[in-house]
Amino acid sequence: MTKTFIVSIGDELVKGEILNTNAQYIANSLVNMGFNISAILNLPDDYKQLVFNLRSLLSQKGVFIITGGLGGTRDDITRKALGEVFKKDLVLDKFADRELENWYRSKGREYTDSDRMQARVPEGGILLKNRVGLAYGIYIEINESHIFCLPGVPHEMKSMFDNDVVPMLRQKNLHDERYKCEILYFGDIAEYVLDKKINGIVSRYNGISYGTRASNGIIRVRFESFNGNLESCVNEVKEKLSGNYLYSGFRDISEVVGEILTGEKFTLSTAESCTAGYLAKRITDIPGSSSYFVGGVVAYSNIIKEQILGVSAETLKRYGAVSEQTAWEMASGALNIFDSTFSIAVTGIAGPAGGSKEKP
Amino acid sequence: MTKTFIVSIGDELVKGEILNTNAQYIANSLVNMGFNISAILNLPDDYKQLVFNLRSLLSQKGVFIITGGLGGTRDDITRKALGEVFKKDLVLDKFADRELENWYRSKGREYTDSDRMQARVPEGGILLKNRVGLAYGIYIEINESHIFCLPGVPHEMKSMFDNDVVPMLRQKNLHDERYKCEILYFGDIAEYVLDKKINGIVSRYNGISYGTRASNGIIRVRFESFNGNLESCVNEVKEKLSGNYLYSGFRDISEVVGEILTGEKFTLSTAESCTAGYLAKRITDIPGSSSYFVGGVVAYSNIIKEQILGVSAETLKRYGAVSEQTAWEMASGALNIFDSTFSIAVTGIAGPAGGSKEKP
Repeated sequence: MTKTFIVSIGDELVKGEILNTNAQYIANSLVNMGFNISAILNLPDDYKQLVFNLRSLLSQKGVFIITGGLGGTRDDITRKALGEVFKKDLVLDKFADRELENWYRSKGREYTDSDRMQARVPEGGILLKNRVGLAYGIYIEINESHIFCLPGVPHEMKSMFDNDVVPMLRQKNLHDERYKCEILYFGDIAEYVLDKKINGIVSRYNGISYGTRASNGIIRVRFESFNGNLESCVNEVKEKLSGNYLYSGFRDISEVVGEILTGEKFTLSTAESCTAGYLAKRITDIPGSSSYFVGGVVAYSNIIKEQILGVSAETLKRYGAVSEQTAWEMASGALNIFDSTFSIAVTGIAGPAGGSKEKP
Repeated sequence: MTKTFIVSIGDELVKGEILNTNAQYIANSLVNMGFNISAILNLPDDYKQLVFNLRSLLSQKGVFIITGGLGGTRDDITRKALGEVFKKDLVLDKFADRELENWYRSKGREYTDSDRMQARVPEGGILLKNRVGLAYGIYIEINESHIFCLPGVPHEMKSMFDNDVVPMLRQKNLHDERYKCEILYFGDIAEYVLDKKINGIVSRYNGISYGTRASNGIIRVRFESFNGNLESCVNEVKEKLSGNYLYSGFRDISEVVGEILTGEKFTLSTAESCTAGYLAKRITDIPGSSSYFVGGVVAYSNIIKEQILGVSAETLKRYGAVSEQTAWEMASGALNIFDSTFSIAVTGIAGPAGGSKEKP
């Protein structure tokens, strides 16, 4: 199988200033095309180190998706490093050069030799158009490897990855169409017990692998296969573990709850204290939530809890703002305000304690 | 300077299922101790690939922080891979063995030979206690390199990193106390122009490096130095760019606004539609926000906008829910409800359009 590497260049990544969402986006897409990711690397904006690392990495054959280090002036190190590693001259693309010059002129900016670097590509490679920004990408096929360089700015990277890289990978038949994947969710069982049971079933099939991941009491199991009978295997797992099996698919548990609310024409509202809108935000992040979520109140102070949500001063005094009693009254308040079927209230200091109340 | 590598092991990382927050946490801490991160690597849960990658990586000298692959049974590949790379036997630590056995017994679980693997350490290494979980960590000094292996579960990793790794790095004097860092924020200037101006100043000093990052019109510049006169350089930058200089320190612009609100005893409320509590959540994420943020309303539907926030039906009909007029009336509504000095209203479909209204 083709080895695949994702390389992200940027000091902001290696210094931990930002999370590498670019690599996550690329990895997700590639995995679903049947690519097997061998490694994700974050490297600093340092020319010498980059040449050293790329030389060692590119001695392997495979698909390389490199992001970052393509911008103007000081940061434009990816282009040069590739040229040095492969001992290729950087050739000026005249079309790109003219486009860049026009852009700089239109902004009233000087177009210098270092700006012109952006229109250069290692000999034998081609430039990739940037539909939403300035820096061109690069594609080069060399020593049986396919190397793509994309901008580091996330929306520019995504545009170029979706519009150029994915179609080119498919056209060159580098992806694996046989790849199949199925996600099942389980509850009310310890991860190690579930793992043992699934292992017992999967080991009797050929060419099927799986991995488990537990979060908030729900265990997500990913089954993958290139040439095995995934369907039979997954059906057997569902059947033998039917007492713990919850649902399947690329859906979060929240989406499943949302489907039930929508199906029953139920509505939902929220009343939050410490979480301050985070719950409402998470609910509206769920696709289709606008059909059942009517609204929420963030009551950060006790006065607002009393005035808006109608929590009694007595309750707040006796049990405190962080109490089950207050949560119940907050939920009741939200039910009244929004006239919803259900309401969820959250109050707490560090970790949220919850209360939920059905409409009377 | 000591080369430093962060290696995170886990299929969930290379497949893009989760973001690598562990590496970010470690990188941040190490950078502030004066370490220079050479690379962050995410590697899959594959024993053969891990041995191959670690062998190539550990041929360099440096500090290696490895997370993940230490758990029970199927995933415990880091321990074995280290033993194989360094040709060291895995020695059983009797104390850890007894502790593990007691734990498994107390849970009524069988303590198998593969569970016992967790109490083994490559010869010459020591186990690191896990204060909040089961899997022991590892420290081994070999070939002038310092290798730390920590669990992949974030809170276990953090506990072990803070309690063991940081003190050991300091004690062994591997950090660089000369490291100094200063962050300045600038506004109302293009990044390339600012970069040119700062470059002109910094290039006249020795041993000072800097990097810029733009986000929402604010440019963050990080100045770093081990042996340069950072203070003079930064003061000169502040002085010469005083027209664009905003503030300094490890604070977000939101914290600076928060300090002004607190200082003036102003209060703030929110009214949100499409962002559904995200704005309120972001505000309450700001340290100290409870002293000025009083609360917010999430009005997802038009009916709620009318009934709770008092947006007129006329306005909604004439200008639509996504309009400046509606945003103004939402902000007015929130001002009335929460009796705050300021209110921010957000309404929109995809990107948020904002309105803000001072109290009359």
